[in-house]
Amino acid sequence: MTPVERAQLAMMLEVTASPKPGNVDRCHDYEGTRLEHFLASAILARPALERAAGCGGGLGEVLREAVRLTTTHRGGNTHFGAFILLVPLLRGGDIPGAVEAVRATTVEDALEFYRAFSLVKVRMLPGDPLDVADPRALDTIRERGLTLLGIMEHSLEHDMVAREWVTGFPLTRRAADLLRRTGCGRQGVVETFLHLLSTEIDTFIVKEHGKAVAGEVRRRAGEVLAGKEELAAFDANCIARGINPGSTADILIAGIYIALGEGWEWDCPEKGKTRSSLSTGA
Amino acid sequence: MTPVERAQLAMMLEVTASPKPGNVDRCHDYEGTRLEHFLASAILARPALERAAGCGGGLGEVLREAVRLTTTHRGGNTHFGAFILLVPLLRGGDIPGAVEAVRATTVEDALEFYRAFSLVKVRMLPGDPLDVADPRALDTIRERGLTLLGIMEHSLEHDMVAREWVTGFPLTRRAADLLRRTGCGRQGVVETFLHLLSTEIDTFIVKEHGKAVAGEVRRRAGEVLAGKEELAAFDANCIARGINPGSTADILIAGIYIALGEGWEWDCPEKGKTRSSLSTGA
Repeated sequence: MTPVERAQLAMMLEVTASPKPGNVDRCHDYEGTRLEHFLASAILARPALERAAGCGGGLGEVLREAVRLTTTHRGGNTHFGAFILLVPLLRGGDIPGAVEAVRATTVEDALEFYRAFSLVKVRMLPGDPLDVADPRALDTIRERGLTLLGIMEHSLEHDMVAREWVTGFPLTRRAADLLRRTGCGRQGVVETFLHLLSTEIDTFIVKEHGKAVAGEVRRRAGEVLAGKEELAAFDANCIARGINPGSTADILIAGIYIALGEGWEWDCPEKGKTRSSLSTGA
Repeated sequence: MTPVERAQLAMMLEVTASPKPGNVDRCHDYEGTRLEHFLASAILARPALERAAGCGGGLGEVLREAVRLTTTHRGGNTHFGAFILLVPLLRGGDIPGAVEAVRATTVEDALEFYRAFSLVKVRMLPGDPLDVADPRALDTIRERGLTLLGIMEHSLEHDMVAREWVTGFPLTRRAADLLRRTGCGRQGVVETFLHLLSTEIDTFIVKEHGKAVAGEVRRRAGEVLAGKEELAAFDANCIARGINPGSTADILIAGIYIALGEGWEWDCPEKGKTRSSLSTGA
C-alpha cells in the first residue's frame, strides 16, 4: 500500500467507523453533508495527496489543491482539518519528517492556506486580525512575514489541529498508539475516538458550542469508557444537539494514517472459521 | 472528474446505497466481507483502472491486475464482475467503445482472465471444461484459440455479466437510463437496483441457490416496486437466506459509471433549493 492509499484508507476508515458520537458515520448523515460526501472526498483528493507525498508544490499550495478538489460536491467542507495533518505527514513520510516539513513552510504557504480557507469558509474567532473574512488578512500575513507554521502558532490556543503542527503531532502519535492498543479494525477506531474525546477538549466543539459543552463531551466520553453511560445514548444526544467533535475526527484520521504505516491492521483476521463463500459483486 | 474517478465513485455509490436487498450496503455486512472491504477495493483498484483508461496492457492483463490489487485484504472477492464491465468501458470510453474493445481481445487476454479467476476462486459450473479448477483449462483455451470475448460467449447462458460483453452491454445501458429516470443520488441507485432485480434473473443467485430462488427474487422485487411488499422485509429475508444478487450489483456499478458520464447527479441538490434538472429531462 502506498502512503497516498494509506491516507485515503484512513479517511475511509474514520468515516465508516460507527458509532462515533456526534459525527457523520456509517449510520448517520448530517442534512447537508453525508457519508457519500466524505467518501467522495477520499477518492477525489488523490491528486493533491500524491503531490503532498512527492515534492511538487509547497504545503500551502497542496492544501489549497486538496480543498479545491474536495469541494466540487455539495457536501461542503469534509476534510480541511484532516488535510492540514495529512499533507505534512505525507510530505515528511512520518511524524519527525512532518515536523521538518512544517518548519520549512513560508509566507507563500501561509497565503495559500488563507486562500484555501476562503474555499470552505471555516470559522475563525471573531475579531481576529487573521480572520479569513477580513480582506486585510493577506496583507497582515505579508506585513508580519508569517509562515504557515507562524499561522498555526497564532491559532494553537483555540485549534487542536494547529497545535499539532506547533507541538510535534503529539495527539496524532497518541491516536496511532491507541489504535494499536485498542485493536484492529472498526472497533479499534471507535475506541480510539472515545479515548481521545475523553481526554482532549475538542476545539471544534468549543468554536461551535463553547467551552462548557466541550467539557461536558469530554466528561461523558470518559463515562462511556468507564461503563457509566451507554455509547448509543451519548451518540444520540450529541446528534440531537448538533455537537460534532470534528477536530478529534481529523486527528483520528492522521492517527490511522500513521498506525497503518506501523502495521496496525484495519482488516481484522477472522475469528474461527474460514469464509463461507466468495461472492462476486456487492 | 476523470473516468477513473467516475469508476471509483460508482463502486462507492453502489455499495453505500441502502437498502439493496441481500447485498453488502451501508447497513449490512457479510460475515467475511464488509463495507470497508468494498470501499478499500474502490481505492486500491485505481492503478488498474488507470491502465484500463489508458492503453497499457490487454484487457485480460488489466483485469488480473485489478483483481490482484483488490484481493490484498481479507474480504475476498468484492468486484470481479464489476471489473469485467468497467475495464472495457474505461478502455473504450463509452459503450460503443467498450464493444470495440471486447471484440479486440485475444487468446492471451483469455489466459490472463483465467489467471485472475484463480486469484478469487469464483465458481464456474461443475464439469465445465473451462472450469478454473481444471488444470487443463489453459491448454483448452490455447487449443481452441479462444479469445476473452470467446470465453464470455461460452459463459453467456449462465452469467449475465459475460452476456453484457457479447450483447453490447444492454443491461449496463438500461441501468444508466434507469438512474436518470429514477433520479439523483442514493434513492436513484436503490430504485434502479430494484428495477433491474424485478426484470432480470440474477445469475449469481442462480449459481448459488438455483433458478427457483432467482425467480422468486425477481418476482418479489416487482412486488416491492408495486407496493405489495415492504422493501425492508424483502431485504431482511434475502439476508437471512444468504441470497446475494451480486451480478445485478456489478451491472449497477457499470450503469452508475455510464450515468455519471452522462450527467446523472450522484449528489442531489438540497431540498428547498433549486430542483434537479432531471425532472425537466434536461
